[in-house]
Amino acid sequence: MKKLLPALLLCLSPIACAQTSIPKNIIMIIGDGMGPAYTSAYRYYNDDPNTPEIEQTVFDRHLVGHSSTYPASISGYITDSAAAATALATGVKTYNNAIGVDVNKMPVETVLEWAKKSGKKTGVVVTSHVNHATPASYLSHNESRTNYNQIADSYINDGIKADLILGGGWEFFIRKDRNLVAEFKEAGFHYIDRYDDLTSLPKNKPVLGLFADRGLPWAQDDTNNHRLSAMTKAAVHHLEDENGYFMLIEASQIDWAGHNNDIASAMSEMDDLAKTLEYLEHYVEHNPDTLVIVTADHSTGGFSIGKKTGYHNKEIKSKYLWQPHILRSMTMSPEAFATKFTNEKISLEQANDLLNFSISPNDMTMLTNAKEEDQKLVKQFEALSPKEQKRSSRHKHYHTVLVAIKEIIDHKTNTGWGSHPNLYLATHTAIDVPVFSFGPQSKQFAGFQDNTEIANKIFTLLGKPKAEK
Amino acid sequence: MKKLLPALLLCLSPIACAQTSIPKNIIMIIGDGMGPAYTSAYRYYNDDPNTPEIEQTVFDRHLVGHSSTYPASISGYITDSAAAATALATGVKTYNNAIGVDVNKMPVETVLEWAKKSGKKTGVVVTSHVNHATPASYLSHNESRTNYNQIADSYINDGIKADLILGGGWEFFIRKDRNLVAEFKEAGFHYIDRYDDLTSLPKNKPVLGLFADRGLPWAQDDTNNHRLSAMTKAAVHHLEDENGYFMLIEASQIDWAGHNNDIASAMSEMDDLAKTLEYLEHYVEHNPDTLVIVTADHSTGGFSIGKKTGYHNKEIKSKYLWQPHILRSMTMSPEAFATKFTNEKISLEQANDLLNFSISPNDMTMLTNAKEEDQKLVKQFEALSPKEQKRSSRHKHYHTVLVAIKEIIDHKTNTGWGSHPNLYLATHTAIDVPVFSFGPQSKQFAGFQDNTEIANKIFTLLGKPKAEK
Repeated sequence: MKKLLPALLLCLSPIACAQTSIPKNIIMIIGDGMGPAYTSAYRYYNDDPNTPEIEQTVFDRHLVGHSSTYPASISGYITDSAAAATALATGVKTYNNAIGVDVNKMPVETVLEWAKKSGKKTGVVVTSHVNHATPASYLSHNESRTNYNQIADSYINDGIKADLILGGGWEFFIRKDRNLVAEFKEAGFHYIDRYDDLTSLPKNKPVLGLFADRGLPWAQDDTNNHRLSAMTKAAVHHLEDENGYFMLIEASQIDWAGHNNDIASAMSEMDDLAKTLEYLEHYVEHNPDTLVIVTADHSTGGFSIGKKTGYHNKEIKSKYLWQPHILRSMTMSPEAFATKFTNEKISLEQANDLLNFSISPNDMTMLTNAKEEDQKLVKQFEALSPKEQKRSSRHKHYHTVLVAIKEIIDHKTNTGWGSHPNLYLATHTAIDVPVFSFGPQSKQFAGFQDNTEIANKIFTLLGKPKAEK
Repeated sequence: MKKLLPALLLCLSPIACAQTSIPKNIIMIIGDGMGPAYTSAYRYYNDDPNTPEIEQTVFDRHLVGHSSTYPASISGYITDSAAAATALATGVKTYNNAIGVDVNKMPVETVLEWAKKSGKKTGVVVTSHVNHATPASYLSHNESRTNYNQIADSYINDGIKADLILGGGWEFFIRKDRNLVAEFKEAGFHYIDRYDDLTSLPKNKPVLGLFADRGLPWAQDDTNNHRLSAMTKAAVHHLEDENGYFMLIEASQIDWAGHNNDIASAMSEMDDLAKTLEYLEHYVEHNPDTLVIVTADHSTGGFSIGKKTGYHNKEIKSKYLWQPHILRSMTMSPEAFATKFTNEKISLEQANDLLNFSISPNDMTMLTNAKEEDQKLVKQFEALSPKEQKRSSRHKHYHTVLVAIKEIIDHKTNTGWGSHPNLYLATHTAIDVPVFSFGPQSKQFAGFQDNTEIANKIFTLLGKPKAEK
């Protein structure tokens, strides 16, 4: 509390008072994998080439500082999403893989649990499955993020902690051995499984909404390209309460796009998050007792905005160039294109139509050769036993076409990645992540801080006595 | 001035007054190429592995915000050092390559020029040659950064604007056609060419100090590993004046290390800058009328703290790991090692001694093969005419060994770069850069801003009326 007092004493005008009062509602937003290259690149992706200036983004309007992300020393300097989300949720550094437990695997209280205990409503809105590392670190305690069924079970077994849960996860919630959806319904929850149902949530019942087996489809391929903002709109209205609410929102798939070195999907996931923040900007204007904090758990993929191409790339005229314009018009993800190109007979013209930009005959040859390679792989895959097939990656059968189309996009945009291009899955990096905040007490998050301090500041804002931390 | 007034009116206590008073001295520091990955990595490089916690760095203590770096639209989204330094010096966006001129190649006033005009002393301290892009953008006006002789000449021809200039540059200042050092002396300057002379600068004469042909040697190879901090200490004391001073300091070679994908040199250049900032922290404590602003012009090389190594790197046990420990004990740059390894007969044991870490017999074979390749290149180089030799890169004759040793270091540290590893020179990237500040009015630089706004804020602090901007 000590750090907050000077700010509270400085309440000299109504505007200053709004800024320094204790927020009734707190919305914590995590862009998974959203390092500073992603928020910077989004500005250029979002730029309107028809105007002379470069438009500021919602991120630019609310940047307040930075956060370091390193895990407990046993895991080195680079965090995974579980350790980082646990730090952001509990204020405790832990080992990579840990969900809401410390280095000794002992449970530690999360800000969401404390908010619930102190009478606030609580919610979780994500684009991954709702038992994935980040939401799990706010709702559960488990020694390993990979125990997906255990984590889903804990959402009932340990007492229901959230008044609203939206995201993916049928595979883990409707199982042969246990139907958690049925159990949530028995516990009084309203269950939905279509985005259309978001507009008619009953105010008097808690809500579980699951919209996919695991993570939701890529933003570009989903029935609603801005499904995170649609879920968020429904969630804030549902959670409004005289005691206020705490909500976690995660733009989960920025990280997945980074791991895949997929700049097109990364930018459309960023766009869904940006639209969510623009909505919340408007919401906070009308609900000035709401604090919004946005950060990332880490950065992913060593994404760099521009790369040196040597002298072989004739499309790139300057050594200093990033060209996002083809990304702005794409309407399907590289993964969806690769699936279609693999399974159907697609001409150069049809490929151009699907991609909404023109590829060269050389690019077409590369894709066709990749398809032949993939057809071999499909045959090999089909010869496997069902058990062996299950162990194989779901992407394997169109891996080569997918790598080829991403290379074409990287080449045209001049996008760089910190990993060798032949490797399929890129890594996390230890770069500090940006922190954005608006609403009352947003200045608390200004300057440099460790990710654990973000949780501690939220605990303080939620009135948790220091001794209990 | 409008933005400053609310801060000035809030002067309610002596501490608040020190924070909100107009600074007498302004020190602008540019870490060339120092994107957020460099300041983050420096924390882990600087970490004492004997303590359980990770020590905060001087950067962490003073982070206040971010800056965007894009050049004028004619040059796309990625800036070079000239356009970025011109933006930071003048508040005007310009094309890549421009030195203190706008997109129409018209000169624009710099903050250093305004400071001089308004009666302050002025200084420039850099580790590049003093007529390199960044210092030139504060001191000169030229349509192209590559006109090194013209830029050096302008330091005399256009009227001397600095009371102190320290860095490299004999090649441009002592030429066959013109001896600028002699001309500076005639104009009343005290000239030095050894670091030892820094401790005995005459207070009553302006100073020119040149310590190398072009840029200074890498920090690790220089006679003083902390030559930027040594020059800075001498400079601040020399510039102290009743009217105050404006000084530009540039840690120029972080960028050069980034271009070379050389993490060892990057970290030792960062260390020299950190020591400079630690000294200035102490200085500002005793001179609370001094404002320090630190930022970068852009990031270089797509440096990522960690990379995915696939399954072939047995030294890297985890997929999420960056291991800077070998960098902490190195005492010579990879370039110096490569030169020695190429020119002398070095055994595995001797190589380990020179590097201060152990390489494997396989690494030794790689280096030996590279040396043979280089010997061929040396023979080819020696067969060139003097004119042809001059046109050839000075590094070419030990390029292969240098690439090999950097690959060994990247492999051991698990460092990633956004360029293809076979390419020698990496590029700039458009990621936003961190902004650090301490001293009076440091809060002016908090949150997000464009690089041009940094110049405009400095102009305001220096009392330039808005109409004149």
